Amino acid sequence: MPEIKKINHIAVAVNDIEEALPFWQEALGLKLDHTENVPSQKASVAFLPVGESEIELVQPTSPDTGTAKFLAERGPGMHHLCFEVDDIEGMLAQLKAKGVRLINETPLDLEGRRMAFVHPKSTGGVLVELYQFI
Amino acid sequence: MPEIKKINHIAVAVNDIEEALPFWQEALGLKLDHTENVPSQKASVAFLPVGESEIELVQPTSPDTGTAKFLAERGPGMHHLCFEVDDIEGMLAQLKAKGVRLINETPLDLEGRRMAFVHPKSTGGVLVELYQFI
Repeated sequence: MPEIKKINHIAVAVNDIEEALPFWQEALGLKLDHTENVPSQKASVAFLPVGESEIELVQPTSPDTGTAKFLAERGPGMHHLCFEVDDIEGMLAQLKAKGVRLINETPLDLEGRRMAFVHPKSTGGVLVELYQFI
Repeated sequence: MPEIKKINHIAVAVNDIEEALPFWQEALGLKLDHTENVPSQKASVAFLPVGESEIELVQPTSPDTGTAKFLAERGPGMHHLCFEVDDIEGMLAQLKAKGVRLINETPLDLEGRRMAFVHPKSTGGVLVELYQFI
């Protein structure tokens, strides 16, 4: 049985990372691990570890992304929740068997990990991402 | 310096816990620890541990709560993010010193823990809760 190991990250959609960072970094005191440009997501992302998880501040670099549309429609805020799983293909098969709608029916291969999104229509409004590190 | 130890929970606003549970419990395979009525929050809450954190499904039991208003305005989805801190009074003082707007200027005492909410106007749209276990 595929298993969820932990929350990998909570992604927060932001209009501007430099404007968003002071709350997380200076006021809450989280450490900024690094900021990077992620071309596959058309976004700049700031990574702030907290316990075994991370807060990711996601600033879209193109208006044709889901995050950019989310910002335009709802404003900044929590965008998605990412779980780390031990077997992403097994988890996608299990979700499908339960009638859950997937955004990615097969995992996307990124550097060092495989990922897929589950459609919020099937989760009760939460955009859920799954990661498996390889 | 007060410190954030981990994500305590992600609260997901739901219209009906029984309708929401199958995705989290059966499709994703998370274990339901328990469901309880929380009169102080006017809500029923289902607790599903994941790693060192929890997913909390929150169903309001009264229309005059923040969660009920959130559901009416935005529909179900991620409602707030709760961090566990080692010193909640110190953290609230630090946030205030940085100009962050607080919903609770002093912690509320609940059974076994103290808690306070930070205003989403100061966080970039994320309703942030702080817990300290005592």
